[in-house]
Amino acid sequence: MPKSRSIQLVARPEGLPQEGDFAVVETDVPDASEGEVLVQNLYMSVDPAMRPRLSAGYELNQPMAAGAIGRVVQSRTPELAVGDIVSNGLGFREFFVSAPPGLRRLEPVGDLPLTVHMHVLGGTGFTAYGGILDIAGLKPGDKVFVSTAAGAVGSVAAQIAKINGNWVVGSTGSAEKADWLLKEAGLDAAFDYHETPVRQGLRQHATEGIDVYFDNVGGDHLDAALAVMNPLGRVAVCGMISGYNEPGARTTVRNLANVIYGRINIRGFTLADFMSRRAQFVQDMTGWLQEGRVRYQETVMDGIEKAPAALIGLFQGLNTGKMLVKLAD
Amino acid sequence: MPKSRSIQLVARPEGLPQEGDFAVVETDVPDASEGEVLVQNLYMSVDPAMRPRLSAGYELNQPMAAGAIGRVVQSRTPELAVGDIVSNGLGFREFFVSAPPGLRRLEPVGDLPLTVHMHVLGGTGFTAYGGILDIAGLKPGDKVFVSTAAGAVGSVAAQIAKINGNWVVGSTGSAEKADWLLKEAGLDAAFDYHETPVRQGLRQHATEGIDVYFDNVGGDHLDAALAVMNPLGRVAVCGMISGYNEPGARTTVRNLANVIYGRINIRGFTLADFMSRRAQFVQDMTGWLQEGRVRYQETVMDGIEKAPAALIGLFQGLNTGKMLVKLAD
Repeated sequence: MPKSRSIQLVARPEGLPQEGDFAVVETDVPDASEGEVLVQNLYMSVDPAMRPRLSAGYELNQPMAAGAIGRVVQSRTPELAVGDIVSNGLGFREFFVSAPPGLRRLEPVGDLPLTVHMHVLGGTGFTAYGGILDIAGLKPGDKVFVSTAAGAVGSVAAQIAKINGNWVVGSTGSAEKADWLLKEAGLDAAFDYHETPVRQGLRQHATEGIDVYFDNVGGDHLDAALAVMNPLGRVAVCGMISGYNEPGARTTVRNLANVIYGRINIRGFTLADFMSRRAQFVQDMTGWLQEGRVRYQETVMDGIEKAPAALIGLFQGLNTGKMLVKLAD
Repeated sequence: MPKSRSIQLVARPEGLPQEGDFAVVETDVPDASEGEVLVQNLYMSVDPAMRPRLSAGYELNQPMAAGAIGRVVQSRTPELAVGDIVSNGLGFREFFVSAPPGLRRLEPVGDLPLTVHMHVLGGTGFTAYGGILDIAGLKPGDKVFVSTAAGAVGSVAAQIAKINGNWVVGSTGSAEKADWLLKEAGLDAAFDYHETPVRQGLRQHATEGIDVYFDNVGGDHLDAALAVMNPLGRVAVCGMISGYNEPGARTTVRNLANVIYGRINIRGFTLADFMSRRAQFVQDMTGWLQEGRVRYQETVMDGIEKAPAALIGLFQGLNTGKMLVKLAD
């Protein structure tokens, strides 16, 4: 019976979460019963969208939930064998017992590392894929703006638009990230929004306006996008991180009246909007990864006790690409 | 050669327009040349959407433009005869000379007054029709919220939703207008937003949430709608009058992040989005009017010199239903 540490929310943060809002709690984990497996998590994900759940969603003094990948270490079901790698929704803990539903066995993809299943080939990549292709309805000739374009979702959305043949500008939080976007991800333009206000960056680079905005930020980014958007433009809203540390996740937008004469469509979405495309996504993305057409970056923090710092770090721009926490080898 | 008075913009207003921003200018109108007609305008429209054009759009010291209905008083073309009634885009002036393109001959509809062509059966009604049916994609069972629901566009959108069998709540600017919405227009609920904050009004009446919001206001109305909107809700943005007197027509919205998990669609539109539906609209609306299923109200100010006051009055809630200016009998 292993000991398992979990991360529990012990206080609801106001504004930026603090480490003291979380506790590391050690518990005994039972053996797997008949029909169950015992899983040891190897990697877990932290995502900006967890922030609103800290205010309402996650229960206090319970292990939090997150996307994770683990290894089966005990099995009492024929459906999974010891050594199988499974994706699961029970991150923020080292071990757990579960029946097979909720676990999905992952197969190795060429010589790609296991962690691709945590981002480009996982929910993050699928969010970007469905968001840019289905929700934004990307068409040939569309000029595309992606915010936090070096982030986990943004970098994939931007690269899919490039693969699709579109002109793409990205905003990001440092000169190094802008450099990566230009040299590695192959964007047409990129700027550091700490140095260049978003509106100025778009006016400078997007001289033909933009037709599609893949929004991860809201606030000043959305206002700037609306200011240069061409008629019949589309905004696919994946996230609004600018408001996540505000009460009610509120982000202030002032240019919405632009949607009227521009006949602009703003659409929020989740994976639920395009689940039927999953097989097509896996096939496309596997190919792009193996051909080196989609690049990615990871920031990996080591040990479950670092999970709160990893989550907080997302709002401080500490991550380059996908932020992961490694729980075991 | 008649004298014609026109209304010209002489200063760009900041905030609420003032009468001094406009001038009444009298000019001589030439006779119609070969192929032209001379038209005397009878009624003209003022609309909230004119406000942004006062800041940028209308030229200074030129006659302004607006939807109008006039009578042909001289004709040198076989296409139109003296006495024909024509809709045109050249309001804010008493007389004008024009070739037939741009003029549309209106036929009487039963014993309905001529002015229905200025609102329910004109662009105002068509905007409401296409907005609620096409842009919002109204479906059976949708709960509908219409803002400024006693206004020219709102009242038609709300009644079309009722004819469609939907539950409808409307916000409006006085107790009398709320009463009209309940007793004449047949809405299920209505409230005076001066007495009841919009969010409170919706929480009180829309106990099953709303699926469609027909937005004429933006700002607090859009925030309140987003706060109670059901998943997969749609917002058809016809106008955002709350911002029209602000620089850049800016209206402040803080609840936009709600679109993400709610998978909500916000779509701005103009008539251009559904022009192909015009014949169907005229047929439907003519029937509804003759059956008494669509009610309307008019506020008519008399004389072209009142046109600036009529336009300003829209932002003070002086109108009940469609605001018109009568220029001649």
